Amino acid sequence: MDFKGRDILSLFEFTRRDIEKVFKVADKLEPVVKKRTRITILKDKVLGTLFFQPSTRTRLSFESAMLRLGGAVTGFADAKVSRAGDKFQESIADTARVIENYVDAVAIRHFQDGIAAEFAEHATIPVINGGDGQNEHPTQGLLDLITIKKELGRINGIDIIMIGDMIEERAIHSLLYGLAKFDDVKVHLVSPNNQRLPQAYKKNLNELNLKYDEGNSIYGLVENADVIYSDGIKTSKEGAITPDQYIVDAKKLVKAKRDMIVMHPLPRLDELSEDVDSTPHARYFKETMYGVIARMAVLTLVFGREEKL
Amino acid sequence: MDFKGRDILSLFEFTRRDIEKVFKVADKLEPVVKKRTRITILKDKVLGTLFFQPSTRTRLSFESAMLRLGGAVTGFADAKVSRAGDKFQESIADTARVIENYVDAVAIRHFQDGIAAEFAEHATIPVINGGDGQNEHPTQGLLDLITIKKELGRINGIDIIMIGDMIEERAIHSLLYGLAKFDDVKVHLVSPNNQRLPQAYKKNLNELNLKYDEGNSIYGLVENADVIYSDGIKTSKEGAITPDQYIVDAKKLVKAKRDMIVMHPLPRLDELSEDVDSTPHARYFKETMYGVIARMAVLTLVFGREEKL
Amino acid sequence: MDFKGRDILSLFEFTRRDIEKVFKVADKLEPVVKKRTRITILKDKVLGTLFFQPSTRTRLSFESAMLRLGGAVTGFADAKVSRAGDKFQESIADTARVIENYVDAVAIRHFQDGIAAEFAEHATIPVINGGDGQNEHPTQGLLDLITIKKELGRINGIDIIMIGDMIEERAIHSLLYGLAKFDDVKVHLVSPNNQRLPQAYKKNLNELNLKYDEGNSIYGLVENADVIYSDGIKTSKEGAITPDQYIVDAKKLVKAKRDMIVMHPLPRLDELSEDVDSTPHARYFKETMYGVIARMAVLTLVFGREEKL
Repeated sequence: MDFKGRDILSLFEFTRRDIEKVFKVADKLEPVVKKRTRITILKDKVLGTLFFQPSTRTRLSFESAMLRLGGAVTGFADAKVSRAGDKFQESIADTARVIENYVDAVAIRHFQDGIAAEFAEHATIPVINGGDGQNEHPTQGLLDLITIKKELGRINGIDIIMIGDMIEERAIHSLLYGLAKFDDVKVHLVSPNNQRLPQAYKKNLNELNLKYDEGNSIYGLVENADVIYSDGIKTSKEGAITPDQYIVDAKKLVKAKRDMIVMHPLPRLDELSEDVDSTPHARYFKETMYGVIARMAVLTLVFGREEKL
Repeated sequence: MDFKGRDILSLFEFTRRDIEKVFKVADKLEPVVKKRTRITILKDKVLGTLFFQPSTRTRLSFESAMLRLGGAVTGFADAKVSRAGDKFQESIADTARVIENYVDAVAIRHFQDGIAAEFAEHATIPVINGGDGQNEHPTQGLLDLITIKKELGRINGIDIIMIGDMIEERAIHSLLYGLAKFDDVKVHLVSPNNQRLPQAYKKNLNELNLKYDEGNSIYGLVENADVIYSDGIKTSKEGAITPDQYIVDAKKLVKAKRDMIVMHPLPRLDELSEDVDSTPHARYFKETMYGVIARMAVLTLVFGREEKL
Repeated sequence: MDFKGRDILSLFEFTRRDIEKVFKVADKLEPVVKKRTRITILKDKVLGTLFFQPSTRTRLSFESAMLRLGGAVTGFADAKVSRAGDKFQESIADTARVIENYVDAVAIRHFQDGIAAEFAEHATIPVINGGDGQNEHPTQGLLDLITIKKELGRINGIDIIMIGDMIEERAIHSLLYGLAKFDDVKVHLVSPNNQRLPQAYKKNLNELNLKYDEGNSIYGLVENADVIYSDGIKTSKEGAITPDQYIVDAKKLVKAKRDMIVMHPLPRLDELSEDVDSTPHARYFKETMYGVIARMAVLTLVFGREEKL
């Protein structure tokens, strides 16, 4: 598939080949980030970062990616600073038809499912979903795949524990769709019963032949895991302490495989103990570096500039 | 008149020659926008976008314009993120004397009439009014004039219906001052009685010899119109439905002239029906593209760089 | 000391030599600002402006400085637009470990003392304190020193009146540490009794051998002063009028030395009368120009690029 001009809305629609193309371009871009420099392959382009839902991490990661490629950025960090947040607001279709005249691609985050797709339907420019409601977060999925590939050396055949609210966590949805394109991946979904993966995602994963089981605890799973993907669960009261069976801490990792890696989309609260930071397993901060690289790769591809690298 | 170093505060003070100079520069810049590229004629300059009143459209349009010219941008999107929004705030004069040391020109939007002019009085850099209270929005006026000129082929002699709140709608005030510089323009101002054009503007339009009439409905006007400029009126209750006589919809356009164009400063609510979008009359989204071109032209001119094109 | 890669957290740790190095680089950069142009020595770098506490002046000054050096900027203007402002928020350590993967240096402002230092402890990139709580504001201190040096011609031996809330005003703390590195500076700290300089700062100033006295009024001090550094004091009720003995106005300056300069970190309220603006003593607006130059110098130095000038 040709990436040029394409919308990046969901990892469901990515083939293995697509993902590997992103890996390849990301590999070429990695030195730019590691050397802390900027290149000029997108110097003639403007990215719009449209954050209807605030996010420092994702917005700065996209903006950094565009700036490191030599491009320019405009946008908003909060719908409240935009009339788009008004009570009597214009349709997303109208917003799309206007914004496409200002910028050459957009990264859009919205608190509602499906808004990125709706925007893309009405815009002629590439639209990158930066997280839509409880649905997907495809560039997070890609950066998670890159992290696994680079830090573990492989994706095929891995055993991965994913802990979190399977209903609300869009990063998990996207990563699952990504993992499903590789061979023999074994997934353990760990969450409270009331935060299980919704049926629609299960149906898609079955269609893609991804094997997964569901459980209420990481006990007994850690020893065989290649990856632990930690994320927060919803506790009964806000600010309540996460129950131990969902917490990743150094003590639980004692019997882990030597090269097992711990990931987290961040920010973390008590579900991922700070004592993991100094273990050789921690990769969650490095993950954010791969985030910039992944987004640089996606931007390079949707502008059709990968040949220039 | 020489544009270099000039403040762009009101279209009242623009001569026909000034407007045509903007048209000429805009024509040269149009390919930059259409080819979605960036040039470098303002690469040594920094624009400040000072939005004391939020606006996605206008701010992103100005920023896109500056970035496409190779310039840099800094600023704020909301006075609340600035001490300037404090209860005990500094004077606009002080803000101007400070900001002029940070940037080389400003685009300023404020919820109060006359603030752009007050800022300009105390700043030595060019100040572009991006909308001040209920007063004026000169770059919107210019982009509207460019839209008419490019899409209709002429401004002289046109018949234009303008619907909206004539008290509050600064875009209409600026467009009226612009139209007044052309020959034989016939304006129909359509609004509820309590939203008629204020006396001060009428006095100025009379002085400029612009012919206009006022009415409460677009019925009977559409057939002869070359342009319908749709905008919202204030309804008795917030969110109430706009009365039919102010609504532009496809049905009302059936007897319109073939090349009649419908414009709107956006965002639109129910005063402009979505069924107009697919008619050959709709120009309101294209208008936003002319917005970037118009602002590029203004920036190029106030920096005195038009010879470099 | 080598500035490359260094954090700029406090002027306490600056030697006289360090400050003079900043002066030297600032001198070379001054023409860039005065000619309103941009150079390219940081064209390969990205600055993050992390403003957990809003500030138009300081943020725009930093962004302007980076843009004039050819660098790129991303960041946030308000913690509320960032998850970092959430009630259950991540640690500053985590934020630092993430952000360092997005940008090559940060300018950080926070409402809490010591946050810049905490951020710096966990980040491998240069961290510039843009004001932390009631503690310090080192780039303001540097720009104040540059202003004195350039406008008065010397720092050694000056007599300076500093008026303000000595507890809360971080700009005064930094300037005091800076002045302490010069010879025979005589400082008069003027504030209400309940807004005296805290013991910790006094201890440090004694250690640095800075001579100061404390008083409740500027009466009798003006005649001998080389610099009046005006700043607001806390009045009993918000919005109350500042008592006359803390107010700087033209009348009080009649007997001042001819070349005495009046400075203010801005914004000013009633503590600095507008009638001073037209006296030959006013330097507070020019101070903001030196602010951009000072920050350009600091950025140039922490990136180790001063040889390229």
